[in-house]
Amino acid sequence: MPKEKELVFGHRNPDTDAVSAAVAYSYLQNQLGFNTEAVALGEPNEETKFVYDHFDVKYPRIISAINGEVKKVMLVDHNERQQSVSDIDTVEVTHVVDHHRIANFETELPLYYRAEPLGCVSTIVWKMYNENDVEVPAKIAAIMASSIISDTLLLKSPTTTDEDRDALKSLAKTADIDYETYGLEMLKAGTNLDSKTTQELIDMDAKSFDMNGNSVRVAQVNTVDVNDTLKRESDFVKDIKAENADKGYNLFVLLITNILTSDTTGVIIGDDNAVAKFETALDTKVSDNKASLPGVVSRKKQVVPPLTAQFN
Amino acid sequence: MPKEKELVFGHRNPDTDAVSAAVAYSYLQNQLGFNTEAVALGEPNEETKFVYDHFDVKYPRIISAINGEVKKVMLVDHNERQQSVSDIDTVEVTHVVDHHRIANFETELPLYYRAEPLGCVSTIVWKMYNENDVEVPAKIAAIMASSIISDTLLLKSPTTTDEDRDALKSLAKTADIDYETYGLEMLKAGTNLDSKTTQELIDMDAKSFDMNGNSVRVAQVNTVDVNDTLKRESDFVKDIKAENADKGYNLFVLLITNILTSDTTGVIIGDDNAVAKFETALDTKVSDNKASLPGVVSRKKQVVPPLTAQFN
Repeated sequence: MPKEKELVFGHRNPDTDAVSAAVAYSYLQNQLGFNTEAVALGEPNEETKFVYDHFDVKYPRIISAINGEVKKVMLVDHNERQQSVSDIDTVEVTHVVDHHRIANFETELPLYYRAEPLGCVSTIVWKMYNENDVEVPAKIAAIMASSIISDTLLLKSPTTTDEDRDALKSLAKTADIDYETYGLEMLKAGTNLDSKTTQELIDMDAKSFDMNGNSVRVAQVNTVDVNDTLKRESDFVKDIKAENADKGYNLFVLLITNILTSDTTGVIIGDDNAVAKFETALDTKVSDNKASLPGVVSRKKQVVPPLTAQFN
Repeated sequence: MPKEKELVFGHRNPDTDAVSAAVAYSYLQNQLGFNTEAVALGEPNEETKFVYDHFDVKYPRIISAINGEVKKVMLVDHNERQQSVSDIDTVEVTHVVDHHRIANFETELPLYYRAEPLGCVSTIVWKMYNENDVEVPAKIAAIMASSIISDTLLLKSPTTTDEDRDALKSLAKTADIDYETYGLEMLKAGTNLDSKTTQELIDMDAKSFDMNGNSVRVAQVNTVDVNDTLKRESDFVKDIKAENADKGYNLFVLLITNILTSDTTGVIIGDDNAVAKFETALDTKVSDNKASLPGVVSRKKQVVPPLTAQFN
């Protein structure tokens, strides 16, 4: 009897890892006897588009809700329900592969859950290929390598571990790419911000968090020139204020990260109390809506944990 | 620099797997460079005492709270905070190895989390020894094999998977035990209920669950003669009623499980509404506080999930 079909997907506003880890994990699970399809919870961003065009890989089907299509799903690169399909509560989560904190996640039944605090989910999936003696096809190796480059900013983010380094080297070899040259080209493709409206930029790689009853939104854009990006500062501020009013966010943090110098400028807008908590948590001053965050490149490791601690 | 010390422990009211998976995982992690000590959140039950005496293994130090001793901990065989040390919120959970649902669990930071829906946590730990090419010492193999026998009722529980079977065979070989003969002896040792007060029996292997705001307690005792155990029925009822009043449980479920026939008789006491939900969830009738649950042996797989679904 064929197994019941399950969908595999990463978080909303997908980045290269959210989509590619889903594709890679779905392939692996199918080799192991499951019946899965990888899907994406949104259009590819500029970087991901570059990656999938470059290696001629088909971008997965896009969905935003399950709508009764399947009864069971597998999550990669997220677990918090507000980052998932809108109707996640209507399905059973049978597997999770992730590298984030666990929050806002609860199941009725035992499940497979594999989290490791590594730089990239594709690194964990690579380990699972090895553990199960499954070969990584060249095209899947290419998008997994791209994911590691993306999540670790070419192994420079403080989230990078030795296992990410090993995985990138191994996958680059399988995919036959020079990851340093290709990686810089890929990261730069992702910083092509001019074609986007500020509204699109604050939504592109944004995640919502519930912090002790406060609704906190943290968005991030990568750039090679922060001043150039901030030429549109007044538009960013206007759009973020509208977004806070519309969605009821208590705090909106936009991280504008220079991938060459590994520094970030934050645009911070929210309730006075929440902004004050941000200042304490990140040990910085918010002046004219902006804060300097030298050495900060990782939302997951350097922004969300201190902010969460401050709200608790 | 030596690693910062971490404690490793299973749930409160420990059973053979909660203690032995902690001992086995602590040993493995120490081989991999961590600095851990396995501890237990309570005295050994009759079965566990038999196991540790039989193989001359030292029972771990007993704690009920961290009390500032360490900053980081690793959990096995549980994740829900009400099943853990009383001050779990004062420490960082860095690793979890479990085979239960995930609920009432949240972290600020990314962590290692390894859950698989297998019969026994010791089976997952056995897989991790293999993945990391670490040999299982004979005494640790003996208590891990005992855990699998305990959790799967000698491979007869519906929670049993092929991996549990493989693990038990491999560990029994390493420990040089005939697991069928030893297993029955061990399970019988755990059903020596006469030396316990009914108060002790309803507390021995009991777990608390928050089900949509309702406080639900599910206890289990194994026996080879349900009628003999129920000779003390009026004492059970009196003690459970006192416990409900004292701890504010909305529902108390005592599962009296016959390990030879794989059937259970439930003693069910609580709010009318909660008892009605139990009847619907388990498709049974509660009459004179008792319910017949033929074929039910697994709290985790056969009782908690339908009950949780009914409360939601």
